[in-house]
Amino acid sequence: MIYLDNAASSFPKPEGVAEAMSEAVLHYGANPGRSGHRLSRKASSVIRDCRKELAALFDCQKEDRVLFYQNATTALNQAISGFPFQKGDHIVATVFEHNAVRRPLERLRKEKGVEVSYMEPDETGSFTKGVLESALKPETRMVVATHASNVTGEILPAAQWGEVLKQRKETVFLVDASQTAGIIPVSMNDGIDMLAFPGHKGMLGPQGIGVLMVQPGIELTPLIYGGTGSHSEEPGQPDIWPEGMESGTLNTPGIAGLLKSAQALKAVGVKKIGEHERILGQMLADALGKINGVRVFSGKGERLGVVSFLIEGVDAHETAMILDQHYDIAVRSGVHCAPLSHQYLDTSKSGLVRASAGLYNTKNDIQTLARAVEEIKEGLLG
Amino acid sequence: MIYLDNAASSFPKPEGVAEAMSEAVLHYGANPGRSGHRLSRKASSVIRDCRKELAALFDCQKEDRVLFYQNATTALNQAISGFPFQKGDHIVATVFEHNAVRRPLERLRKEKGVEVSYMEPDETGSFTKGVLESALKPETRMVVATHASNVTGEILPAAQWGEVLKQRKETVFLVDASQTAGIIPVSMNDGIDMLAFPGHKGMLGPQGIGVLMVQPGIELTPLIYGGTGSHSEEPGQPDIWPEGMESGTLNTPGIAGLLKSAQALKAVGVKKIGEHERILGQMLADALGKINGVRVFSGKGERLGVVSFLIEGVDAHETAMILDQHYDIAVRSGVHCAPLSHQYLDTSKSGLVRASAGLYNTKNDIQTLARAVEEIKEGLLG
Repeated sequence: MIYLDNAASSFPKPEGVAEAMSEAVLHYGANPGRSGHRLSRKASSVIRDCRKELAALFDCQKEDRVLFYQNATTALNQAISGFPFQKGDHIVATVFEHNAVRRPLERLRKEKGVEVSYMEPDETGSFTKGVLESALKPETRMVVATHASNVTGEILPAAQWGEVLKQRKETVFLVDASQTAGIIPVSMNDGIDMLAFPGHKGMLGPQGIGVLMVQPGIELTPLIYGGTGSHSEEPGQPDIWPEGMESGTLNTPGIAGLLKSAQALKAVGVKKIGEHERILGQMLADALGKINGVRVFSGKGERLGVVSFLIEGVDAHETAMILDQHYDIAVRSGVHCAPLSHQYLDTSKSGLVRASAGLYNTKNDIQTLARAVEEIKEGLLG
Repeated sequence: MIYLDNAASSFPKPEGVAEAMSEAVLHYGANPGRSGHRLSRKASSVIRDCRKELAALFDCQKEDRVLFYQNATTALNQAISGFPFQKGDHIVATVFEHNAVRRPLERLRKEKGVEVSYMEPDETGSFTKGVLESALKPETRMVVATHASNVTGEILPAAQWGEVLKQRKETVFLVDASQTAGIIPVSMNDGIDMLAFPGHKGMLGPQGIGVLMVQPGIELTPLIYGGTGSHSEEPGQPDIWPEGMESGTLNTPGIAGLLKSAQALKAVGVKKIGEHERILGQMLADALGKINGVRVFSGKGERLGVVSFLIEGVDAHETAMILDQHYDIAVRSGVHCAPLSHQYLDTSKSGLVRASAGLYNTKNDIQTLARAVEEIKEGLLG
């Protein structure tokens, strides 16, 4: 199989990830941070190592502000719904947000009377510093932006926006790096106050882990209350990080797998991975662009290995199904949980077929997909 | 090592659990329910199989009402904080609740003006039908009870209470089976409306999964909003189960591991496991009870393999540390995230040492622990 659905979940994983998880289950399956015995301490130390590794990779100032959740969606909910918004506050987001951001925002709008604006690219189709500047108001308490579109692969200028927001102490900058973490370098030093990403996409780890990093000074209310392993006598949730923000038992095998994958991608080099995927994405966009009757929806400027397309007259789901069943190529069709992107691209009705390259894809994979698309187009239409 | 900390996390796991997780990572690491290709369908089918297996094991009426979260804490928060309480509603719980129940309840009390009562055992030290009946009021909208104390191993009469509550349509019964699921049979047919438990304790699965089962007719508001794989165009969270209640990517490897462990424990037989652990628990309580200067805190009547104790004059943490370092026996000391239990037992200050047997413990393990406790007592005190 040619797997080109890495934007949904990367596959395969680096060598050693499954083994690290097995080791956790087979050799130290005790509860981390709950008991004092050898196995529990081993589990705790792997979790601490993972916090350290990730804090270093993304320039989070304190490792105890690296929080583990089930997925990036939960991490984003914690960042958004756990933030102390007041009625009348304003939030700026982009039209490229995933439902993991959009739905929590719409909930705040409805339940808390917070105002939400979604930035669109300017008339040249680009997100610039100016686009952000003109969206800001005195009431803007948070800017939340995906670091890249999961539909077109376009990278948004998070670092530039961070520069603007560094000047505004009253505004917190939350970056959803679901599509970029592990693929292009991200530094929280670039004005990023909170950073969320999944372990199982560009980070090359297993499913079951989402990460939220929060710079010191930002306080959040936990969404989940419960046991924290210490301060157990307090009836309220204790204000200690990370424990108070991570009630209940953590996913130790998943964190062990993520630690392994983070080490593996550091060894390859995040920059190198991004360059590899950028080349494949560009190659695919170019190849598909040459086929008559294929519309390509692909990021301008800086880009990932993500390309969406549509064969005119062929349903997106049907294209994906044929690619799976006749060509053994895995892609994803639909609106990819990003309905505003599709409104912006005017593809809400049709949806799109998305191909997303990963570290282990080759130029040959891309050529094979492009040939298959051409054949589908010819076979069905001509 | 002799592992007697199964109430915190069971260890070891049945054969095949780590392998099932590896298989998920190595052979179908795609996103379940998001794409239509072969690998994604395989991931979805494993998750569906796990829902089915668990629904059958606990008599949940519909498999799409079996929900997966990161841990039982999150499952319990979803059941409690997601329930449509109104100001003035009343909740009944027990003094044996874990902080995963108590802290969400205290939060509701504070934030929503809901009244909370914690039932204590009657004057004979037993939880009876009558204890519940006298705690109920016209305003009681929920009874939430742990199925067994994680400190004393005492089993609470959930089925009897369920009988009482079946007569009260206005009151929902939530059972926290964190200590019992997989160890003693639990049937939702016994008047249980919602059931929560972790995958990694008696269910013998990996850490990273908590389960919430909800009978049809009960509506909850999801705590986490986000992508649901379908209905993506709706700005609000779609009211579809399970997807609308489980935003974001699930922990596929963890669910695959839990499916395997659920099958393994079904093969052994839940009743048989409970009987095995009951015998070990009773044996330990008896053996420790015979040692002069050791106080045993152990459930009356029906019990699990969980026993807490205190060597008079020796700090609980010190006892646990000596057991770990000198005897290679893993137990847990402290208040076990159950402060009300300790208030009731009058052990808040000292904490307790807890030994908890599992499926793979033997009588020899129990004898070794009892001998070690005797030696510690002699060596340090006499």
